Amino acid sequence: MKAAMLYEYDPAVNVNLKIEDVRVPEITAPDEVIVRVGAAGLCRTDLHIIEGVWKPTMDPNGTLLPYIMGHENAGWVEDVGSSVKSVKPGDAVICHPFRSCGVCLNCRHGEDMYCDNGAFPGLGMNGGFAEYFVTSERSLIKLKKGIMPIEVAPLADAGITAYRAAKRAARLLRPGSYCVLVGIGGLGHIALQSLHAISGCRIIAVDREPAAQKLAKDLGADFVLDGGPNVIEEVKEITGGGAHVVIDFVGELGVENICWKMARKGGQMFVVGYGGKIEVPTVHLVIEEINIGGSLVGNYTELVELMELNADGKVKMHYTEYNLANINTAIDDFKHRRFTGRGVIVP
Amino acid sequence: MKAAMLYEYDPAVNVNLKIEDVRVPEITAPDEVIVRVGAAGLCRTDLHIIEGVWKPTMDPNGTLLPYIMGHENAGWVEDVGSSVKSVKPGDAVICHPFRSCGVCLNCRHGEDMYCDNGAFPGLGMNGGFAEYFVTSERSLIKLKKGIMPIEVAPLADAGITAYRAAKRAARLLRPGSYCVLVGIGGLGHIALQSLHAISGCRIIAVDREPAAQKLAKDLGADFVLDGGPNVIEEVKEITGGGAHVVIDFVGELGVENICWKMARKGGQMFVVGYGGKIEVPTVHLVIEEINIGGSLVGNYTELVELMELNADGKVKMHYTEYNLANINTAIDDFKHRRFTGRGVIVP
Amino acid sequence: MKAAMLYEYDPAVNVNLKIEDVRVPEITAPDEVIVRVGAAGLCRTDLHIIEGVWKPTMDPNGTLLPYIMGHENAGWVEDVGSSVKSVKPGDAVICHPFRSCGVCLNCRHGEDMYCDNGAFPGLGMNGGFAEYFVTSERSLIKLKKGIMPIEVAPLADAGITAYRAAKRAARLLRPGSYCVLVGIGGLGHIALQSLHAISGCRIIAVDREPAAQKLAKDLGADFVLDGGPNVIEEVKEITGGGAHVVIDFVGELGVENICWKMARKGGQMFVVGYGGKIEVPTVHLVIEEINIGGSLVGNYTELVELMELNADGKVKMHYTEYNLANINTAIDDFKHRRFTGRGVIVP
Amino acid sequence: MKAAMLYEYDPAVNVNLKIEDVRVPEITAPDEVIVRVGAAGLCRTDLHIIEGVWKPTMDPNGTLLPYIMGHENAGWVEDVGSSVKSVKPGDAVICHPFRSCGVCLNCRHGEDMYCDNGAFPGLGMNGGFAEYFVTSERSLIKLKKGIMPIEVAPLADAGITAYRAAKRAARLLRPGSYCVLVGIGGLGHIALQSLHAISGCRIIAVDREPAAQKLAKDLGADFVLDGGPNVIEEVKEITGGGAHVVIDFVGELGVENICWKMARKGGQMFVVGYGGKIEVPTVHLVIEEINIGGSLVGNYTELVELMELNADGKVKMHYTEYNLANINTAIDDFKHRRFTGRGVIVP
Repeated sequence: MKAAMLYEYDPAVNVNLKIEDVRVPEITAPDEVIVRVGAAGLCRTDLHIIEGVWKPTMDPNGTLLPYIMGHENAGWVEDVGSSVKSVKPGDAVICHPFRSCGVCLNCRHGEDMYCDNGAFPGLGMNGGFAEYFVTSERSLIKLKKGIMPIEVAPLADAGITAYRAAKRAARLLRPGSYCVLVGIGGLGHIALQSLHAISGCRIIAVDREPAAQKLAKDLGADFVLDGGPNVIEEVKEITGGGAHVVIDFVGELGVENICWKMARKGGQMFVVGYGGKIEVPTVHLVIEEINIGGSLVGNYTELVELMELNADGKVKMHYTEYNLANINTAIDDFKHRRFTGRGVIVP
Repeated sequence: MKAAMLYEYDPAVNVNLKIEDVRVPEITAPDEVIVRVGAAGLCRTDLHIIEGVWKPTMDPNGTLLPYIMGHENAGWVEDVGSSVKSVKPGDAVICHPFRSCGVCLNCRHGEDMYCDNGAFPGLGMNGGFAEYFVTSERSLIKLKKGIMPIEVAPLADAGITAYRAAKRAARLLRPGSYCVLVGIGGLGHIALQSLHAISGCRIIAVDREPAAQKLAKDLGADFVLDGGPNVIEEVKEITGGGAHVVIDFVGELGVENICWKMARKGGQMFVVGYGGKIEVPTVHLVIEEINIGGSLVGNYTELVELMELNADGKVKMHYTEYNLANINTAIDDFKHRRFTGRGVIVP
Repeated sequence: MKAAMLYEYDPAVNVNLKIEDVRVPEITAPDEVIVRVGAAGLCRTDLHIIEGVWKPTMDPNGTLLPYIMGHENAGWVEDVGSSVKSVKPGDAVICHPFRSCGVCLNCRHGEDMYCDNGAFPGLGMNGGFAEYFVTSERSLIKLKKGIMPIEVAPLADAGITAYRAAKRAARLLRPGSYCVLVGIGGLGHIALQSLHAISGCRIIAVDREPAAQKLAKDLGADFVLDGGPNVIEEVKEITGGGAHVVIDFVGELGVENICWKMARKGGQMFVVGYGGKIEVPTVHLVIEEINIGGSLVGNYTELVELMELNADGKVKMHYTEYNLANINTAIDDFKHRRFTGRGVIVP
Repeated sequence: MKAAMLYEYDPAVNVNLKIEDVRVPEITAPDEVIVRVGAAGLCRTDLHIIEGVWKPTMDPNGTLLPYIMGHENAGWVEDVGSSVKSVKPGDAVICHPFRSCGVCLNCRHGEDMYCDNGAFPGLGMNGGFAEYFVTSERSLIKLKKGIMPIEVAPLADAGITAYRAAKRAARLLRPGSYCVLVGIGGLGHIALQSLHAISGCRIIAVDREPAAQKLAKDLGADFVLDGGPNVIEEVKEITGGGAHVVIDFVGELGVENICWKMARKGGQMFVVGYGGKIEVPTVHLVIEEINIGGSLVGNYTELVELMELNADGKVKMHYTEYNLANINTAIDDFKHRRFTGRGVIVP
């Protein structure tokens, strides 16, 4: 099969993936499933992998390369292991990015990402920038009739990261409450749609980019701000003292320490983007009684819920399509922000 | 002032209210507020009061009559007691129906309707079918600029009863879950809009009346059923085994024992309408692990939330206007279902 | 191996199980585990199975007999299937009664008992009244060092049924709240200990039997009532108007319609025992805003939690031991209440 | 009446309060209540007031002095305003420290400390280091028969601060979960008892002082650590990877940045003590998905719950008694840690 092979790390991301013919993967355990890739989203994490940022975690001995990236996958079941019952060859599926064991206590609590025995196709093992890849039965959700893999692939990772934060926010929001979303990119635009669908709150979208501001308006944000130097005061003015929830999709460049200042007494900040450092006096945390918490990729049931919202037309992913043969162009366009929404690779 | 006086109970509701000139009420306690009535909703409970159904509760000694009904009130503050600080004469307000004390433990938990020391204008004391009535500071919510009392008065009681049930339902519903609403009348059409605003669930509306079915469709119900003899099977078919939540706005005539049969394993039925009797084998409750619970009028903070949804254009009350002088016509039209939505009395 | 075989149903439960030599079960799927039985609890459900009550559900074609009952099992791992990783031969384990698939959406939500593809050793397939039985990896919890199977076997079913109800109750109870437990038998005495461990509420224990009343007192119930004709008034007097939660472990003989009358405004009744029929006017449900809900056997994570409470010495099961050869005596003693706590069969 | 007057701020806290004869306060509003002080706890905040730390907040114009401190009060009702109904002269009461309005939305949500119109006797207005002080009806909880003001006064502030954090923790803890309490002083020892009463978790107490370690053991901590340089590893070892919840009663001196490192994936840190600064990389927040949140003094219903636990003998305050005439000695002893538990002033 055709696959995009990563042969070396490069901090400048100037390296090219090589499109090669490699062996189709085979079933090696009773719960495994071979998926024929329909589409695979290109994620900022892929750039970080090329940079070598993930090497210490996923390739500590330096023996991984060459390998195939791609962890936002959807396609069709090609083959199944001996114990697989819930899907059969030909079924269209979207793949939760994490292969969780289903036996450990974290799995039993539904938090697949905390699994003690998990594996992550595309990070440390071959993923979906290829014609086929292997995952496990517990990762799969069948697509409803009429939904094509290319329309939904990036929901598998970018989508549920945004949805999980939005769902956690919704539990804290009432009609009349305000939620600030900082960064209306691939994740933020999904969070905005999700919040509208599952919560009666008001949404304040913040982004420096006019295109992102326009997208936020089109998707129904109640207020759109450009993130200028007065953004904290603007939020306090709109909200009458601060937002009930702030979701930070940036998490670096100082944004992380602006966000918690936007929260009202008893408010919550969720951190999704990363790279920076939160610095907050404990007296502020106590007197204002605010919470600051990280939010990770969503679990399997959250992907199920997001797929239902998508099927109901309430949440849609914007994307640009690239053929697998052109994956290096896609990466280059991503680096230079030449497309909006998500880039999706089709083998 | 002009007021509609009830002089006698009549099980057939053939008695007329008398429009008389009576004394304007006066402030008798530091937290009281005189409200100039802008509009007062006509509620089925008013018919029950005339019938005498409420006499044992609100008039046990038979000394209440003549008095003024009307418990769904909005208008303008006319005068305030010495300790009132949050409103001033001229403010447009909607009135939570219950005057709660704010001191007892039930009030401290936010459940105004459970107040140990409450009073209920319109039930047992003079209400809003008049030019003025008296309530207390803790009952009042200021209307946002541009919102008129007549547009919102019935939200004060019918509205928050529906909203409370919808909010309780929303906590149990995920995207992809199903909620059945049985009865799309004055309450049901508010519940439908509320659920759409605060939950990503799918809604199955059930009503025998074609006009109510059309209203449900117009308001965006995902499925509309006519409540025929196969309704349980129809719900099970649509939902793949039963609904996650069923809200029964009828509560009598056998409907109450159809509703819990629509619930899936682990499902919930909320009972809002009343008059009938639930009869359910304990083995069914246990094996299916379903819950059956009553739902009462909403508390003050729920009215605040509903007013926010209304201000955001997400929930609107349908109504027909009557002058106070024509209140007997309004009552007669209500008895014979000659209007849709809510009848509202304007002094 | 030795096993107790059921050869025929008998409504009078006068039939004897036959102790026979049968083939040891074998692994037939990669996730299966053979457990050498250390102890197996005797449950009222076993009597109902003998009576034929469960025949329509678990043996609709009448082809099941002879088979081996026993669904409250603990012991040691004897053999494991090819994909089993979390246990190995020799490990001491307790067995959740239900073999859930781990793939369906109900499993993903953690509700093993709702599993779409489950199996129930001891009900409809061979169980633990034998030297060995077969279950699956997902059913097993390793015992902490020093805990013997015989001390805990009935926690696997009776225990988690009581614990689940107690845990659901605890979420509704604050310090100063009252919980009524009706029936302090095998389940009730576990619920009492569990509530004390996880909630600061006050407990009112109700039982007609002096021995059960004494057990309740010994386990620290704040009030013990004999369930006489004034029990509702007694509860209202103690609680100042009604209990916040009532758990009914009887569920029949009229008890089920006494219990909901003990609940205060906004209160909850959980139904665990069954056989009777709840009959409640909808007006009472609404005005008092009470909830009535069934509660089923606990899920896997609830068994984990109960085992932790047991390991910490906070919840202990009372039991009487019988050798497998004497199982018919154990059944007879159970029928005639000749032992207190739970009867446990040891092969 | 006798009262301890503060005449000047002094960063070194070397100033003496002056015991003077001043006028007994009088009722000036219908909801006010004069309380004859039975006992008033001495709080670290009182030292901070003397130091001048609170001057910018509570005395911005420098016109407050001389005034009477004391915000942890219990005693007997002496006189009531015209609208007060829930207490009468002679009733023994404990006083929530904050006089909340009962009308604003924060009050309606039950969060008295967020009240838009509150007042704080002892901070910015006269408090309880005197024979009488004035508060409002909504602050009062009647003491159960047999409970004396001196036994409970510090529960009014120190107690509910600890209880609120413990209650928030309990919602996140299951049997088998671990909660770390850092600092077993006036607040920590209440949190420890509260957690035992309302949660089945395991408690790891951390304190450098041998006396505090002994107190923790006596109160039933499952593990007691001395907070040495390996404390993070010790917690990870005991808990198998990190604690589910960590409550930091220190909040300064670097402790605040040790605490979040003790939390497991998905864990929560509550910050109660203050003075330091949290510094945490966003990548750690996200990958570990931990939450860091401040926790403030408890609200009125939390004080009600704590008083119930106290009445049930489950939570007790340790204290040392001083006569009002010796308040300067009490302050000096407090500064130099010459007593354990709480110092309480009796007029």
